Amino acid sequence: MDFGFDETTTEHRERLLAFMDECVYPAEHAFHEQAATSGWGPPPLLEDLKAEARRRDLWNLFLPGEHGAGLTNLQYAPLAEVMGWSPGIAPPATNCAAPDTGNMEVLAQFGSDWQRKEYLEPLLNGEIRSAFAMTEPDVASSDATNIATSIRRDGNEYVINGRKWYITGAMNPNCAVFIVMGKTDPDAPSHRQQSMVLVPRDTPGLTVRRGMRVFGYDDADHGGHAEVVFEDVRVPVDNLIGEEGGGFAIAQARLGPGRIHHCMRLIGMAERAVELMCRRALSRNAFGKAVAQQGVVQDWIAESRVRIEQLRLLVLKTAWLMDTVGNRGAHTEIQAIKIATPAGVEWILDKAIQVHGAGGLSQDFPLAGLWAGARSLRFADGPDEVHKRSLAYRELKKYMG
Amino acid sequence: MDFGFDETTTEHRERLLAFMDECVYPAEHAFHEQAATSGWGPPPLLEDLKAEARRRDLWNLFLPGEHGAGLTNLQYAPLAEVMGWSPGIAPPATNCAAPDTGNMEVLAQFGSDWQRKEYLEPLLNGEIRSAFAMTEPDVASSDATNIATSIRRDGNEYVINGRKWYITGAMNPNCAVFIVMGKTDPDAPSHRQQSMVLVPRDTPGLTVRRGMRVFGYDDADHGGHAEVVFEDVRVPVDNLIGEEGGGFAIAQARLGPGRIHHCMRLIGMAERAVELMCRRALSRNAFGKAVAQQGVVQDWIAESRVRIEQLRLLVLKTAWLMDTVGNRGAHTEIQAIKIATPAGVEWILDKAIQVHGAGGLSQDFPLAGLWAGARSLRFADGPDEVHKRSLAYRELKKYMG
Amino acid sequence: MDFGFDETTTEHRERLLAFMDECVYPAEHAFHEQAATSGWGPPPLLEDLKAEARRRDLWNLFLPGEHGAGLTNLQYAPLAEVMGWSPGIAPPATNCAAPDTGNMEVLAQFGSDWQRKEYLEPLLNGEIRSAFAMTEPDVASSDATNIATSIRRDGNEYVINGRKWYITGAMNPNCAVFIVMGKTDPDAPSHRQQSMVLVPRDTPGLTVRRGMRVFGYDDADHGGHAEVVFEDVRVPVDNLIGEEGGGFAIAQARLGPGRIHHCMRLIGMAERAVELMCRRALSRNAFGKAVAQQGVVQDWIAESRVRIEQLRLLVLKTAWLMDTVGNRGAHTEIQAIKIATPAGVEWILDKAIQVHGAGGLSQDFPLAGLWAGARSLRFADGPDEVHKRSLAYRELKKYMG
Amino acid sequence: MDFGFDETTTEHRERLLAFMDECVYPAEHAFHEQAATSGWGPPPLLEDLKAEARRRDLWNLFLPGEHGAGLTNLQYAPLAEVMGWSPGIAPPATNCAAPDTGNMEVLAQFGSDWQRKEYLEPLLNGEIRSAFAMTEPDVASSDATNIATSIRRDGNEYVINGRKWYITGAMNPNCAVFIVMGKTDPDAPSHRQQSMVLVPRDTPGLTVRRGMRVFGYDDADHGGHAEVVFEDVRVPVDNLIGEEGGGFAIAQARLGPGRIHHCMRLIGMAERAVELMCRRALSRNAFGKAVAQQGVVQDWIAESRVRIEQLRLLVLKTAWLMDTVGNRGAHTEIQAIKIATPAGVEWILDKAIQVHGAGGLSQDFPLAGLWAGARSLRFADGPDEVHKRSLAYRELKKYMG
Repeated sequence: MDFGFDETTTEHRERLLAFMDECVYPAEHAFHEQAATSGWGPPPLLEDLKAEARRRDLWNLFLPGEHGAGLTNLQYAPLAEVMGWSPGIAPPATNCAAPDTGNMEVLAQFGSDWQRKEYLEPLLNGEIRSAFAMTEPDVASSDATNIATSIRRDGNEYVINGRKWYITGAMNPNCAVFIVMGKTDPDAPSHRQQSMVLVPRDTPGLTVRRGMRVFGYDDADHGGHAEVVFEDVRVPVDNLIGEEGGGFAIAQARLGPGRIHHCMRLIGMAERAVELMCRRALSRNAFGKAVAQQGVVQDWIAESRVRIEQLRLLVLKTAWLMDTVGNRGAHTEIQAIKIATPAGVEWILDKAIQVHGAGGLSQDFPLAGLWAGARSLRFADGPDEVHKRSLAYRELKKYMG
Repeated sequence: MDFGFDETTTEHRERLLAFMDECVYPAEHAFHEQAATSGWGPPPLLEDLKAEARRRDLWNLFLPGEHGAGLTNLQYAPLAEVMGWSPGIAPPATNCAAPDTGNMEVLAQFGSDWQRKEYLEPLLNGEIRSAFAMTEPDVASSDATNIATSIRRDGNEYVINGRKWYITGAMNPNCAVFIVMGKTDPDAPSHRQQSMVLVPRDTPGLTVRRGMRVFGYDDADHGGHAEVVFEDVRVPVDNLIGEEGGGFAIAQARLGPGRIHHCMRLIGMAERAVELMCRRALSRNAFGKAVAQQGVVQDWIAESRVRIEQLRLLVLKTAWLMDTVGNRGAHTEIQAIKIATPAGVEWILDKAIQVHGAGGLSQDFPLAGLWAGARSLRFADGPDEVHKRSLAYRELKKYMG
Repeated sequence: MDFGFDETTTEHRERLLAFMDECVYPAEHAFHEQAATSGWGPPPLLEDLKAEARRRDLWNLFLPGEHGAGLTNLQYAPLAEVMGWSPGIAPPATNCAAPDTGNMEVLAQFGSDWQRKEYLEPLLNGEIRSAFAMTEPDVASSDATNIATSIRRDGNEYVINGRKWYITGAMNPNCAVFIVMGKTDPDAPSHRQQSMVLVPRDTPGLTVRRGMRVFGYDDADHGGHAEVVFEDVRVPVDNLIGEEGGGFAIAQARLGPGRIHHCMRLIGMAERAVELMCRRALSRNAFGKAVAQQGVVQDWIAESRVRIEQLRLLVLKTAWLMDTVGNRGAHTEIQAIKIATPAGVEWILDKAIQVHGAGGLSQDFPLAGLWAGARSLRFADGPDEVHKRSLAYRELKKYMG
Repeated sequence: MDFGFDETTTEHRERLLAFMDECVYPAEHAFHEQAATSGWGPPPLLEDLKAEARRRDLWNLFLPGEHGAGLTNLQYAPLAEVMGWSPGIAPPATNCAAPDTGNMEVLAQFGSDWQRKEYLEPLLNGEIRSAFAMTEPDVASSDATNIATSIRRDGNEYVINGRKWYITGAMNPNCAVFIVMGKTDPDAPSHRQQSMVLVPRDTPGLTVRRGMRVFGYDDADHGGHAEVVFEDVRVPVDNLIGEEGGGFAIAQARLGPGRIHHCMRLIGMAERAVELMCRRALSRNAFGKAVAQQGVVQDWIAESRVRIEQLRLLVLKTAWLMDTVGNRGAHTEIQAIKIATPAGVEWILDKAIQVHGAGGLSQDFPLAGLWAGARSLRFADGPDEVHKRSLAYRELKKYMG
C-alpha cells in the first residue's frame, strides 16, 4: 500500500498546476465577463486557452490508450481534481470536458472506423462538441427500461421519435452530434432493448427547443441543458454505435470513468470552497472578533477537511480498482463515490456560502454556481437512492443462503 | 390552551383560500410567462389580481391597527401561510409583500405625519413600492455596528454615502422610495449610532447599479435584489424616521412581525412541496414500482409532515406571544423560528426536488426557485449562527450566579 | 388559539413543582444509593414519597374519569413533563408510572367488574404493580400479525404458550399481574386474531427468566425488563379483557395516552439535560475560556432550546386533539410525536453528555441513563420507521385518485 | 499509489483470520458466560487464548522495532481491524490491548533500562497488565494545563496527590503498575509542566476507589474504569519516565499509534455490525416482507458500506504517513481519524441496533456494548470538538498573511 503519486502523475500535475496558475485563474474574470454576452456557447478566449493547453501537452488527458494521453484512471484522477478548481474553464481548455469525454470514450471503444473518422477525430482535436441524449422528461429515466424514445429500423435507416431534456451542451453552436439512447426492441429482455445512435445536429426532425435551468442558471457558456425533440428523425443504420440492443451495456461502460472525473472535479471544487471559506472568515469581523474565530465556523472548516480527505481517497481507490480489476470489480466503489461525493461536496459548499453571507449567493463568487452543479450531480446518472439500493442488495447478497 | 382558529381567522382564511383557488393558482402559468418578458418588475396581470383582492377585502391583511386590516399577528399568521403556497403572486396581489410590509409598519409606527401622507398612503393603496437598504457588501452587516454607510447632517440636510446590496425590489420601476440605514454618529454607544432616512428613488447621487443573483435567479418579477450606491445623496432632515440614533431600535421592531410573515410563508411553501412530492411519487414508476412505494421516499414524506407540524406550532405560538407579551417577551421564540424554519423548509424542498429528478431543478416546477428563497433566508436578518449564539446566551444566563 | 395553561393545569402544576422541589429532588441521591442494594424493585423510601404525594393530592393524575384525577390529556401533559425531570422517582411516587398507567387505563375502559375490583383497585391504590407482555424475542412484534404467543381456549380456561421479553417491571416483587397479548385465532382477519388476558404472576407455568439489559442498565429499581416464558399457563376465561379478537383494538387504544406521557416525560428529561449542560459549561474551563463560551457548545444549547419548544407544542397539540376529536382524529399527530420526540431528545442528551466529558457517561450524572431510556423509545410501540411509513401512506392517500 | 496489502500484511492477516475463526469466535459465548461471574478481571479462558496466540506467533503485533513483531503502522492497521470484530477478546488474547499497548510503546521509547526490565518485559510477556492515569474528574483534562494532580519532588522521591477517573483496566487484579500524569512544575511553560511517573499498584496512598460506568456497563472483564485516589503516594525518582517536564511530549507521542489502533478496531466493529444488520434484516419479516426489503434499511446498509470504505482508507493513509513522514507530518490526519471514525462507526452501530429491535439493546447481541465503546471514544484523548478546533486553526493558518 502506497499513498504517493507516481512520477507520471507528479509530472503531469505540476505542468497542469502551472497552466492553472499562469493561464486559467488569470482568465477567470474575463471569461465570465465575455460569457455574459456571448450567448449559448463559450466565450472567445476559450480558443486561446485551448491552443495554450495543447502547446503545453495538456490535451485529452482523460483518454487512455493510443487516442489520448494514455494515462490510467489513477493517473488522471488527480488531474481532474486540479481542473475542478476552475471547473467551467479548465476542462474545456484541455479538451477534458463532459459530455465529450464520455462520448469520445464510447467512440474510441465501440465506434466503427467511419464513426471514429467522422466524429472522434474532430472531437479529439477540439474542433466540435457533442451531446449525450439519455434523460427524458416523461419517465424516471434512471431505470433504463423506462426509456420511451423509440429507434425503429426502416430499411437502411433508423427512425427516431421521442423527447429528451437536460441534454448538456446541446445549445452550443459547436455541438455537431448527439449520441441518442432509445429503444430498438421493447420486447427484448430489459437490458437488451436499448441502442445508441449518432444523430448529427442538423438532421431534419431534431429540434433543440429550449434551455433547461439548474436553480436559475442556464449554463450558457458550456452550451446549456437543452430540451430536444426528435420527430421522425432519420439516420443511416451505420450510425448505430456497437450493436442493436447494446445501448445499456455501452451506457454502463461509459459511466465508470465519467464518475471518476465528476467526483475528482467535485473534490477540486470543495478544495476551492475551503480556501474561499478560510479567506473570507479571516477577512471579516462580526461582534468583536474575526469570523474565523467563531467555533461553529471552525467546526465547518475542520469537517470540510476531514470529509474531503475521505472522499478523495475513496475516489482514488476506485480509479485504482478500475485500472487493476476493471469496472465490474469496482462496481461497489463506483456506486459508493457517486453516493458520497456530490452530497459531501454540497455540504462543504453550503457552509462556504454561509460564511460569505449574501455574497455567497451572488454572481461575485463561484460558490452558488458550484453548489448548483454539485446538487445536480445527486441526480446525474440516476439519483443517489437508486445507487444505494443497488449497493445494499450486493451487500445483502453476501449473507443470502 | 386551545389549538383552533378563532372566527375572524377562519372567516378570512376561507375568503383567502377562495381567492387562491379562483384567481391565484389559475394565473400562475400566465404570470410566469408574462414575467419572462416584462423586465424588472411585475407582469401586467398583477394589477388585475390586486384589484380583485381589494374587491374581496383581502388587502393589507398584515397590518394591525387602523391603517390595515386590524388583525393580530396570530390571526394574520395562518393567512401568510396560505399566501406562501404561491409566494411570488399572492403577497403582492394582496399588498402583503415584503419589503413593503415592514416598511409600512415602520412608517405607521415611527413615521411623521408628512411621511405617512407622502409614503405610507400610496403604499397602503398599492400605488408605489419601496425598498429597505440595510445590507452592505463590504462588512458583516448582521452586526449593526459594522454598518459603513454614513448619514452626515449638513444644515437642513442629511448627506448619505455608502454602498448597499441585495436591496430587494429596488429594480422595480414602481419602487419610489428607500428606507436607508446608516450611521449618524459613529461615536455614540454601539446601538445609538444608526439612523434611518427616507430617500426618494430619483434623488441625485443614488445609483441602482445592478441586480444581484440568488443562485442563478434574478427575481426580476419582484424587482430583483439591487446593488445601490449612495454618493453625496442629500435629503431634507425631515426625511429622518423617528429620532437620530433610533435606527437600531426601529430595525429591531421591524423584525418581529416580518419574521412571522417569512416563516409562515415558508410553511406554506413546504406544504406545497409536500403536495408536489406526493403527486410526483404517485405518478412515476421506477424499477417495477411507483416511486411512492419506495421506503426512502415515504420516510421523506413522513419527516416533512412531522417537521411542518412542529414549525407551524412554533411560529403560531410566537405570534401569540408577540400579541400578548410583546416583541421583547417573545425574543427567544422570534429567534427560534428564524433558526428552525428556513433550515427545516429547505430540507423539505430538497427532498421534493430529489423526488422530481432533473425536473426538480428546472423552471417547469416551482421547487428550485422556492429552495433558493428558503436558502437565502438562512442569511436574511442575520445568519442563523448569530441568532443561535444570542439565544444560547439567554439560556446560559438563567444559570449564572 | 391560546397557548396558556388553564387554571386547573396551573394549580396542579404548582403543587407538583412544590412536591418536586421539596420531596423528589432532595431524595434523588438517597434513592439511588438505596437502589444500588435493593435488588429488583424500588428502594424503600419510595413508599414515603408515595404517601406524601397522596397527602398532597398528587395521585393518579394521569387517569381521566371517575377512577383518577379526572384531568384531560391536555391538562395532564404538562404534569408529565414536570415528572420527567426525575423520571425514575416522580412517576412511581405519584402512581403515574408506566406500564401501570396503561394497564389501569385498559382495565378502567375494558375491564369487567371483578377485573376492576381484583386488579384496578389495588393498582389505583399503589398496592401492587403490573406488567404488559407484548414484545416477543423471535419475531418483529411491531407487526401484531407476527405475535407467536398462543392463547388457546380449553373449556373454561385459556392455555397460554409463548415467550416474551423486555417486559418492564416484571422482576419487581410487587408486580402481581401480567396483561398478556397473544393469538386466540390465527385464522381470523389480521387485526382480530389477538386477545389480551390477565395472568397473575404466581400462575404455574409462568417463569420470569432473566432481566434484559438496556445498554448496560438493568433498571432494577423499577423492576427491570424481563424475559418471561409461558408454558401451558392456564387462567380462567374470565381473565379475558374485553372480547376475543379485541386485543389489537385494546393495544391501539392503550397507545395514545401512553404516547403523550412518554413524550412529555422525555421533554422534561430534555429540559433537565439543558440545565445540566448549561451549568457544566459555565463551570469548566478549557484552553483559556469557559466551555460555555465555545461556539459549538452555544450552538448545541440553542438547538436544544429550539427543538424542545417545537416538540412540546406538538405533543400538547396532540393531547388537545385527543381530547377534542379522539384518538382516531389525532392519528397522524400521535405518530408524529413518536417519530419526533425520542429522536429529538436523544440528540439533546447526547450533546449534554458531550459537554460533561467522561462524567457524562458515568453513574454520577443522570445523563447516560436518560439517554438509554430515550434511545429505547425509538423502538417502544414499534420502531420509528413503522410509524413513518404509516404516516406517509396517509399523506399520500390525500392525492390518490 | 497502490491500494493492495503487501506480503507481510497479507501473511499476518491470514494467520490472524484463521485464529479468529478457529479460536476467538468459538470462544465468545463461553467468554461472556465466564465473565459474568469472574469479577473485575478477564475470564480464565483468556489465558488459553493467549497461549494459543503466542504459539501461532500472533503476539505483540502492534509493537514496531525489536521488542515487538516489528510491523509498521500500515502493516499492523489491517490486523487491528480484524481484532475489532471481537474487540473484547482478540486484543488481549494477542497482547495487543489498550492501555498496555500505549504503555509498552512509552516504555520502549522513553523508559530507562530498569523500567524496561521491571515493567516492559512482563508486559511484553503478558504476565502483568498496566493502567494509564491521566483523566481527572474535576477539570476539563483534555487541556493538559488543567491537570491538577501534583508530583512534587521530595529528596529522592516524588510525592503524588490527586484524583483520577476512568482509568481503564485498574480494577483488574493483574494490573501491576500505573503510568501517572501530573504536574511537577506548575510555573513552567504550559507544555513543560507535566511529567509521567510509574506507580506500582500496591504503593501506599494509592486507592482504587470504584468502577466508573459507561452507559451502565462496568466493563469488568477488562478491568473496568476506575476512580483512583493518590494521597501522599511516594515513589523513587527513578520512576520518572523520561525527563521532568516531558509528560506532555510523551502523551503526544503515545497518541498517534493508539489512535490508529482504536480507529481500525472501530472499523472492524462496524464491519461486524453490518454483517449482523444484514443477517437480521434477511431473517425477519414485518408487514408482509423481509426487513431487508425495506428501503430505509437498504439505505442504512449502503450508507454504512460507503462510510466504512472512506474511514478505512483515511486511517490507512494516516498509518502510511506516520511510517513515512512521522507523527508530526501526519498531525492533520491523526486528528481527522479521531474526528471521523468514532462518530461514523457510532452511526452504523445505531442503525444495526435499530434493525435488531429491542434485541439490539440487549446482552444477547454485542451491538449495544460496541456502541457504548464507540460513543466513549468521542471523548477519549479529548473530545472531538477540541480536535476540530485545532485542525481548523491549521487550515486557516495556510491563508494567514
